[in-house]
Amino acid sequence: MNLKTSRLDLKLKHTFRISRESSDVRNNVLVEIEHDGLTGFGEAAPSPHYKETADSVIEALSRFPLEVYDDVFLLEDILNHAVEMLTPNWSAISALDMALHDLVGKKLGVPLYQLWGLNPSRTPQTSFTIGIAGIPEIQEKTREAADFPILKVKLGTEDDEAIVSAIREITDKPIRVDANAAWKDAEEAKRKIEWLAGQRTEFVEQPMPERSPGMRQLKRASLLPLFADEDSRRPEDVPRLAESFHGINIKLTKCGGLREAMKMIHVARSLNLHVMLGCMIESSLGITAASHLLPLVDYADLDGHLLIQGDPFAGVEYRRGYLSIPTLPGIGVTQHQ
Amino acid sequence: MNLKTSRLDLKLKHTFRISRESSDVRNNVLVEIEHDGLTGFGEAAPSPHYKETADSVIEALSRFPLEVYDDVFLLEDILNHAVEMLTPNWSAISALDMALHDLVGKKLGVPLYQLWGLNPSRTPQTSFTIGIAGIPEIQEKTREAADFPILKVKLGTEDDEAIVSAIREITDKPIRVDANAAWKDAEEAKRKIEWLAGQRTEFVEQPMPERSPGMRQLKRASLLPLFADEDSRRPEDVPRLAESFHGINIKLTKCGGLREAMKMIHVARSLNLHVMLGCMIESSLGITAASHLLPLVDYADLDGHLLIQGDPFAGVEYRRGYLSIPTLPGIGVTQHQ
Repeated sequence: MNLKTSRLDLKLKHTFRISRESSDVRNNVLVEIEHDGLTGFGEAAPSPHYKETADSVIEALSRFPLEVYDDVFLLEDILNHAVEMLTPNWSAISALDMALHDLVGKKLGVPLYQLWGLNPSRTPQTSFTIGIAGIPEIQEKTREAADFPILKVKLGTEDDEAIVSAIREITDKPIRVDANAAWKDAEEAKRKIEWLAGQRTEFVEQPMPERSPGMRQLKRASLLPLFADEDSRRPEDVPRLAESFHGINIKLTKCGGLREAMKMIHVARSLNLHVMLGCMIESSLGITAASHLLPLVDYADLDGHLLIQGDPFAGVEYRRGYLSIPTLPGIGVTQHQ
Repeated sequence: MNLKTSRLDLKLKHTFRISRESSDVRNNVLVEIEHDGLTGFGEAAPSPHYKETADSVIEALSRFPLEVYDDVFLLEDILNHAVEMLTPNWSAISALDMALHDLVGKKLGVPLYQLWGLNPSRTPQTSFTIGIAGIPEIQEKTREAADFPILKVKLGTEDDEAIVSAIREITDKPIRVDANAAWKDAEEAKRKIEWLAGQRTEFVEQPMPERSPGMRQLKRASLLPLFADEDSRRPEDVPRLAESFHGINIKLTKCGGLREAMKMIHVARSLNLHVMLGCMIESSLGITAASHLLPLVDYADLDGHLLIQGDPFAGVEYRRGYLSIPTLPGIGVTQHQ
């Protein structure tokens, strides 16, 4: 098998800001694996938070000897090898995992959801993300998101209440709050959550920094369900989260791809944790890959492709709050020429 | 899809005795699902310990409306429906799960290990089980098992030391001990384990009764790794076992089939637990189905088909300690006429 990497620079429709960073462009990486006349596609969405860049992804994958493998069905061997060699380049491993799954599906002539025995009509509604911005812009974005039944609101600054109040002037649709680890202690988090509970908030994601000892206490006191995001990277993180959170947010980029995401879902279920499937800012390639897992999760936040201009791929389609998974073999995306 | 059940009475080569029961014949159930010109096979191995019988399996499956489904790729929906409707008839659910997996593999033209991305050459050696018997018979069985590099020895009576000593007169190959929940407290278990540790014992399975509070203490004191069997039925049992055991024994019959077994493997790995794949007394059908999971586990105890006369199926083959998984589509068994 041959592996090719190339840059996938995605220009955002609007500057995207969360509690710790802001961006106008995302430098993702496209992975193509050729085998037997078929091409599998994968996308890496490296995150500065995890100290990955497009360059580090390309460098990591250039070291991986995929050419020694001639059997695409050896997924487990190849991906274990990649984990051994490339850790902690999780977004690089994820792109490899995606491209291999795409190839397996194409080889068998079935979409990934079918390979996994899942019913593509059982998908939860997806939320649409409102990044941090000034109040007039927040209100404009909220109006633009009229088609989306659920908003995910990025908080974690001094303006938290002002932002939510500004949204509530426009709409009373349910919101999900993502503090991106910005509230400094359980006291602040508890206070904000109490206020948010009166604002039709469904749940709060990552209220405090990773491994905050105050999380166990916060879970007991919280009026709203709490989801781990920055705290929940890999399958082995999940068991210790059960005492501090009500659910986890799984992202392919954090965990190393579809195979690991599936494991995290099973671990979370065994612990009675809710499961959300999230994303980075990605093209329709990465989002569509993740969408095949939707029938196994409770909450979806797969909107990264909606935030970019000139999506290089077509795949998952958005219809009245729901994503519709393509029925083509593999991931099921087509590349715009 | 149409589901047919029939009795599969398996006559044992020798009376098989463990700490709590003994048998000369096992009354299993064959499940056949027809769809689109293909037939998927599954086997239920009901256990009196879990209050299941061939009759209860046949009755349970007769209630399940498989005919409403026309798409074999809806595995998750069908099996969730079965779990909802048939719990706790786990061996019935397992037979359904097996037959559906067999159909999916046949439909796609690939063996199950390939569907799951596994390398069939990565299988651990399997052990051969010596049931409880008189000393001369134990020694005869040990001699007969010359081809098997590892013995699994059933203990849990007053003769435990005599049995192991009798085996040690014949061979010094490694043994694994299964007490089948028979040692009454942590004191007795600790004493027996100390003695067994000097007898080239690899590990001890289910030393004490299910949910024994003494297990946590025993884990800390034990000179040998401890595996849960009776304690480890379903994925949701696994998290609480991490403090009391070093590993778990997964059996399709206990957990509800291949799909649930896969989940248990993932949960166990996230908790750093070792994984053994075990079986009941089953034909080559049930054993071969389980064998496709072997590349994901550390220890194998898949010898149930070797204990019966006139195996109605051919599938997995035994070669110098290893099981060789068939390469035919689906489970890969053929029925003897």
